[in-house]
Amino acid sequence: MLASGETLAPVEVAYETYGTLAPDRSNVVFVCHALTGDAHAAGHHGDPARPGWWDVLIGPGKPVDTDRLFVVSPNLLGGCRGSTGPSSVDPRTGRPYGFRFPHFEVTDLVTVHRRLLAQLGLARVRAAIGGSLGGMQVLQWALDHPDDVEDGILVCASARLSAQNIAFSAVARASIMMDEHFQGGDYYGTGRGPDVGLAVARMLAHITYVSEESLTRKFDRRRSNSSGPTFDVDFEVESYLHHQGSTFLERFDANSYLYLSRAMDYFDPFGGERAVRTGTRFLAVSFDTDWRFPTAQSRAIVDQLSAAGIAADLVEVESPWGHDSFLLPVPAYLDLIAARLRA
Amino acid sequence: MLASGETLAPVEVAYETYGTLAPDRSNVVFVCHALTGDAHAAGHHGDPARPGWWDVLIGPGKPVDTDRLFVVSPNLLGGCRGSTGPSSVDPRTGRPYGFRFPHFEVTDLVTVHRRLLAQLGLARVRAAIGGSLGGMQVLQWALDHPDDVEDGILVCASARLSAQNIAFSAVARASIMMDEHFQGGDYYGTGRGPDVGLAVARMLAHITYVSEESLTRKFDRRRSNSSGPTFDVDFEVESYLHHQGSTFLERFDANSYLYLSRAMDYFDPFGGERAVRTGTRFLAVSFDTDWRFPTAQSRAIVDQLSAAGIAADLVEVESPWGHDSFLLPVPAYLDLIAARLRA
Repeated sequence: MLASGETLAPVEVAYETYGTLAPDRSNVVFVCHALTGDAHAAGHHGDPARPGWWDVLIGPGKPVDTDRLFVVSPNLLGGCRGSTGPSSVDPRTGRPYGFRFPHFEVTDLVTVHRRLLAQLGLARVRAAIGGSLGGMQVLQWALDHPDDVEDGILVCASARLSAQNIAFSAVARASIMMDEHFQGGDYYGTGRGPDVGLAVARMLAHITYVSEESLTRKFDRRRSNSSGPTFDVDFEVESYLHHQGSTFLERFDANSYLYLSRAMDYFDPFGGERAVRTGTRFLAVSFDTDWRFPTAQSRAIVDQLSAAGIAADLVEVESPWGHDSFLLPVPAYLDLIAARLRA
Repeated sequence: MLASGETLAPVEVAYETYGTLAPDRSNVVFVCHALTGDAHAAGHHGDPARPGWWDVLIGPGKPVDTDRLFVVSPNLLGGCRGSTGPSSVDPRTGRPYGFRFPHFEVTDLVTVHRRLLAQLGLARVRAAIGGSLGGMQVLQWALDHPDDVEDGILVCASARLSAQNIAFSAVARASIMMDEHFQGGDYYGTGRGPDVGLAVARMLAHITYVSEESLTRKFDRRRSNSSGPTFDVDFEVESYLHHQGSTFLERFDANSYLYLSRAMDYFDPFGGERAVRTGTRFLAVSFDTDWRFPTAQSRAIVDQLSAAGIAADLVEVESPWGHDSFLLPVPAYLDLIAARLRA
């Protein structure tokens, strides 16, 4: 079932839906999440203070308007929030897969998305939308299956990680895998895991998700304690990063981080010899202060699509918040998505 | 003896000199090294393949021309390459200081530089020169002691780390201090130390020392193995970073990294209420692709000096190699330094 030829079964997929399916099934919007996302994209599960990660975008009257549209949002294959991944039990052994989980590619994420849709009795979607790794899935999907997706919306995505992108992921993975408690990936149930390595990986990654301007606006050089130099968290920005690292441990699995980040490294949908063709029309959105997946990477996607005669628009939105802007209520960005889904 | 009021004694300083002192002692150039540098700035100790870290700049006929100039290059206080630091034995206990080493500021590094010069029978220097943290020492020195330094040469320095700068150092420190083998800084002689944490810290820091363009030119997405995805070093850039991390362990002490990086975080020579005055004239050099200490930070230094009526020139040099450019034979950069030291 996987592109590599390996098989993986069974595959469970956790998903949420929002809105109502139209009788003619013409109003489906499929949401693809990023590296550390999950199925809970919108609304809340009882606590309004904990909305879904894309709640600014999805809901009644919002750009992805659930008064009109039916939204499907799954957790990714390889993830750790309900879908089958390295922390799932391997039925052959009765133990979690760990590193026995097969490597997979972005195309395999798409395969699972399509199987989910098929189970729901759906095929073609009005739109597929995703940010970062989510946008990569949308691009792969449209190129692999030219008739599936009417509008492909790629937010701060990339068709090809740069050496620097791979470098940041390599350090994050090294931090996890060199952690003494990693145990070759078999840390489940042992009472210890690569928590330090995963927290450091998240702290590092987080810096790359925000702009320098964003950190300066939020923290500048403000102190979190007033005594002289210590090796505690003397600056507010340090305190913030430590918080990012520790809260991440509560919701994410180290092996999922490894597998999904590796799939991103290898993503190269224009790299093969296959002719580039699809019936999907694209909107690529980038943010001017995003230095993890800067506008140049979105432009490269649009240039390659356009060269193949495929309709593809690029809009760079001004926002001070860097890569994280795709999760934030940036008005020009929300307007763009709304307009594309009204059209 | 320290600015904090704490005392530290004795303090040993390892240093090298190059060239010959002029009879009138007018030809002294003082070299201040960066975070992970040492006293061995030029020439070699028997193996021409292992030259000093600034050998492109310092030597006979080179920009810092040792046919004319007498160069003094010490290892920093707090370092681990011969000068007193956290790995030195505390005479009060007979054991290495570890975290009992006092915190110090950049002004304390300058105090030690001046003591070294005094021991050599020297006071005023023709020039003080340093890159990154080295440039910070030069700036602090000139502002603390207005008559000491004729030419202050600051290469890719900063007068004030940004929140992002502090953030990168915070993650590096977290990686070291959260390493299970850190033992509160008392790892000396235990046979175990925070090697994983220090290696990850170095890998991370290294990404910030090089430009995206530099990584793309050197590695792009070239593979270091041809088999499918693994969690080994599949890409050349990963192999390179792992090498950077592991070789760093052979030459640097984790506690020195913590203390010196913390001194950088707090550096803020224009932050006090003291009037800014000095007889030093300045040259600040930045590199257009340096994103760790970008041109804006050099410009901020020069603007503040100029506003106080102090002679200060800023030159941004084009170089694809990012922050590391200050260690590399970039012709326009070498010419600038040569011209300043001829004048």
